[in-house]
Order: sequence, then C-alpha cells, then structure tokens
Amino acid sequence: MLSIDAYRSVFVEFLEKNTYNNQPKNLYKPINYILKLGGKRLRPLLTLMTTDIFSGDHKDALEAALAIEVFHNFSLVHDDIMDDAPLRRGQTTVHEKWDLNTGILSGDAMLIRAYQYFENYDDPIFRQLAKLFSKTAIEVCEGQQYDIDFETRDDVTISEYLKMIEYKTSVLVAAAMKMGAIIAKADETDQDHIYEFGRNLGIAFQLQDDYLDAFGDPKTFGKQVGGDIIENKKTYLYLKALEHASKEQANQLTDLFSIQPASSDEKVAIVKQLFEETGASNDTKQAIKDYTESAFTVLNDLNISSEKKALLRTFGEGLMNRTV
Amino acid sequence: MLSIDAYRSVFVEFLEKNTYNNQPKNLYKPINYILKLGGKRLRPLLTLMTTDIFSGDHKDALEAALAIEVFHNFSLVHDDIMDDAPLRRGQTTVHEKWDLNTGILSGDAMLIRAYQYFENYDDPIFRQLAKLFSKTAIEVCEGQQYDIDFETRDDVTISEYLKMIEYKTSVLVAAAMKMGAIIAKADETDQDHIYEFGRNLGIAFQLQDDYLDAFGDPKTFGKQVGGDIIENKKTYLYLKALEHASKEQANQLTDLFSIQPASSDEKVAIVKQLFEETGASNDTKQAIKDYTESAFTVLNDLNISSEKKALLRTFGEGLMNRTV
Repeated sequence: MLSIDAYRSVFVEFLEKNTYNNQPKNLYKPINYILKLGGKRLRPLLTLMTTDIFSGDHKDALEAALAIEVFHNFSLVHDDIMDDAPLRRGQTTVHEKWDLNTGILSGDAMLIRAYQYFENYDDPIFRQLAKLFSKTAIEVCEGQQYDIDFETRDDVTISEYLKMIEYKTSVLVAAAMKMGAIIAKADETDQDHIYEFGRNLGIAFQLQDDYLDAFGDPKTFGKQVGGDIIENKKTYLYLKALEHASKEQANQLTDLFSIQPASSDEKVAIVKQLFEETGASNDTKQAIKDYTESAFTVLNDLNISSEKKALLRTFGEGLMNRTV
Repeated sequence: MLSIDAYRSVFVEFLEKNTYNNQPKNLYKPINYILKLGGKRLRPLLTLMTTDIFSGDHKDALEAALAIEVFHNFSLVHDDIMDDAPLRRGQTTVHEKWDLNTGILSGDAMLIRAYQYFENYDDPIFRQLAKLFSKTAIEVCEGQQYDIDFETRDDVTISEYLKMIEYKTSVLVAAAMKMGAIIAKADETDQDHIYEFGRNLGIAFQLQDDYLDAFGDPKTFGKQVGGDIIENKKTYLYLKALEHASKEQANQLTDLFSIQPASSDEKVAIVKQLFEETGASNDTKQAIKDYTESAFTVLNDLNISSEKKALLRTFGEGLMNRTV
C-alpha cells in the first residue's frame, strides 16, 4: 500500500503521460485543459487504493482510474454550461474560454473516451467495468436532472434531496472503489461492500460540502463562504431548517431565499443564524457523522486485514476532517 | 430475408415497446420525443438486414439497432443545439421545445443508454460491439468538430471535406452494418468488407445530400431547396466549383458566400448556375457514382450468396435514386 499522496502522484503522472495529441486540435485542447486544472483527484486515487486493498496491483487500475477522472471532468464541463458558471477551480470554464459548442462537443468526446479506457481490460473484467460505468453515468445524469428540477420546486423532501446527492455525487465515488475491487478480482460480496462504503462516504462528503459552504472557515475554504445561500440553493441545511422552523422562521427563510440583495453579507449572516437556531446546523453535522459511521460499519464485513480496514477508516476520517 | 419496409416496421415496433418510463420525467420525456419524430430509420434497419444477410437472426440484432438509433438521435439533439436549429424533421427541436440544459442533459443520457443496450449480448460479442461503437462515436464527434472548424476556414481541401463527411455520417452507417455481421458471427474479413460497403455507400449518400440540397426537386425534397447555399455551407459542390472556377467565377462565388441577402432566390439561382458552369454539378454526380460503385465492388469479396449480394446492390441503388 502507498500513502494517499503517493497514489495521487502515481495517478497524476499517468494522466500527464496520456495527454491527447489527436486531431482535430479544437476538440482535444479543451479536454487537456480541463483535465490539467487539478483538483483533489479523489475518485481515481480511490480506484488505485482499492485495487491494492484487495491485493491487486494498483498499476493495473490506472486505465479505469483515468476513465473515472475523464468522466468526472465531462460532467463538470457540461454542468458548468448548465449552471452558467464562469469559473472552475479558479480558472475559466471551458465554455467561457472557448464557446458553448466546444463545451458540449468536447464533453461528449470525453464521455466516449472514458469508455475506451476499459478496452484495456480482458473479458469478463471489461464487461463488469463498462456495465458499472454505464449504470453510474446514467445515475449521475439523473441526479443532475433532479438538481435542476429542485430549483423550481418548493416541496423538495429531505429524502428526495438525499437521493439527488447520492446520484449526483456519491455513486461515482462508490463506483470508483468498486472498480478497484473488480480489477483486483475481489469476490462479489466484497465488491458490493466497498461500493456501500464509498456510497455512504460520498453522501457524508457532499453533506459536508453543504455544511462547509455555510460554516467553513473563510481562511481555509477555497470558495466564497455562503455561496449556496447567496444563490438560494436548497441544501440539506436549508431543508432541515424549514423542517424545524417556526412559522415566523420559515417565512423569514423563504423570503430571504426569494431575493438576491446587492450586498449579501447581511443575508448570509441572518440565514446562518436561522440554520443554527432551528437546529439545522447540528442536524447536518449529525447526518455527516451518521453516514460516515454507516460507511465504517460496512468495513466490518470486508474480507481484508484489520490493517487495511484501519487504513480505509483513517482515509474516511481524514476526508471528514477537511476544511476545504 | 424481409423487405426493407418490413425491417423498418420490425424496428419501429421494438422502438415503441422500449419507450422510457424512467424517472426523472424531465430527463426522459425529451428522449422519447426525439426518438418518436420518425426519420428513415436507415441505420437500425441496416443492422437488422445485415444480421440476416450473414445468416443470423435479425431479432437478435434489435438491441444493437436500438443503440445505433439512440446514438444517432443523441447526435441530432446536440448538433441541433450547436447549429441553433429550430426544426428537426419538421418539428420543434429539443432545446427549443424545452431548453438548452434539457438538450444537453438528455443528449448525454442517450449516449450512455446507447451503450447499455449492448449489455444484452454475451462476451465476446459485447466487447466487439462496444469497442466498435466507441470508435465510431468518437469519429462522429471528430467529424462534427471538423465541420465546425471548416465554417471559419477558407482553405478546406476536397480530401478534408471527404474525411469530414466520412466521420460525421458514413462511419455510423458502416458500423451499423458491421454490428449486424458481428451479431451473426460472420468472420472478420466479411465484417470488414461489409463495413467498407457501408462506408462507401455512406459517403455516396452524404454527397447526394449535398447534391439534392441544391438540385433536388422542390416538389419531392423535404427541406428547402438551396438551404446549404443560403447558409453559405462549403459543400462538395462549392469546393469543386472553386477548384475549377475561373478567377472571375471564383470571386463571384466567394462574394456570394460572404453575404446573406434578405431575398435569397437570386443568390440560389446564380450559385446553382455557377455549380453547373464550373462542372461541379457533374463532378458531384460522378463522385456519387464512384463511391456507389466502390461499395458494389466490395460485394464481390463477400462470402454470401449471389441473391444476397443482389439484395444489397438493390438497396444501394434504391438509396442512390432517392429524391428526398
């Protein structure tokens, strides 16, 4: 086993060796651009790590890890168009740097290219990876559609919200880990357990994203603290706050979430106070803990050494103690 | 073997049985909409027919045929966004009927769903189909990018143009046929030959599209005759005309292709005359014949009965005598 940082380095080195030199340039330049913007490389490193966890060789997992990362970046490029986002990782988004058509078409090409990386695997691994990938990819699209639908609905339930973030975020984390298990030829029960571990951890991760967006430390949090509040995003915090709010608090909250004041500092401050007063802030922290614990419980059932279980646990704890 | 119309009916019936009833509705409704708009269903019926040609059972090819048709419609939805097209088959395009984001996201979902249909096939057929599909899909994207690039270039060569239409149109026709051969377990040489047949026929088909757009009979041609000329599209006719034009003719043609007059009748008439005078019109008819003949020549090498060869020939001739 390597350290997390070492897995990341191995992956990034492989990614850089696999720059696209294909024609037409105008299709592949944006792909190289988005892939080189950086990021935590969380999903691909999980694929590599999980392969080693199940006594495979992480080098055999590099193509699958790259497929996952290329797919993830496809979804970022298309999501950024849909969100009309000017920036991604502090840099200009593809559709802003080039144009709408370039964003659509190079995104499409990335989705197809992702599938092609699985061709490096023999049958029946190829089929298992491609099938899991398709199932996951379609769920990510469905999650994105739910997210769009929720913007114009005011009756979104907590359970609908959880399904949305599960599809939009956590199934890809789960699939990234299961792919590692498939490549290491782990038995099916272990494959399913590691998927469950990733799925629960992924939900915890996304809930923590919601939490940090409001309550993160501006000094260490990469994005603007309060961004979700400014954009009137119905996050877990918001939905929980409404659930527990008095009639007066609920009115105040929905009123604030129907406006976009020029100066948002006051709005952010009041909303955060409402999140605290209604208990939504504590509920969210509790939900993060619960999903993380659910992930850790799954570890008990895995047929791996206790050292490796400890490693996965440490990884999960590290992820949940992040400030960024 | 069935008749062309019978293959089409079998396919359409299967398509209609496979309407998406999945959630979220807003993702799948546009997919059902575009798939039901009709069209010639040329590619999927070719998959069915080719399976029978190689002594397979066309019923086994229905899923692959559906994959091809869903992919083709994915490309239409995304291309219509890129071309800002209001109509497709006389009906409102997806991004116009819904919105840009719906067009992007339901297109993405169609691309993924297309892959999933191959899961109905056992190894190694699954791998062969998925691999051919990915190679083809990426070429279609590359062809679309070349098409976009050519809009702003004035030095496009005939051979570049032919590569563009090969990628954008004919590789999918070729792959549709090869998939039929794969499913019928034809030997690899036959698979490659039927691919070549489809590729050449596909190029002839697209050149004929260029020709009919200018010289088709307004009474039978579905679209507005002269549409490519009005939009200043650098088709085979245009490139050939420039190749053979006198300096004066070339200036006249490039001048006309730099404007969009309010009333286009006169422009269309003059350009068509130039296409005739320079010999571009005849060259195009000749190229269509040549590619069709190349397709027919490949038939000689196929290990199938002469009756089946005659059938493919009749199909090709029918396609080339179309007026729509």
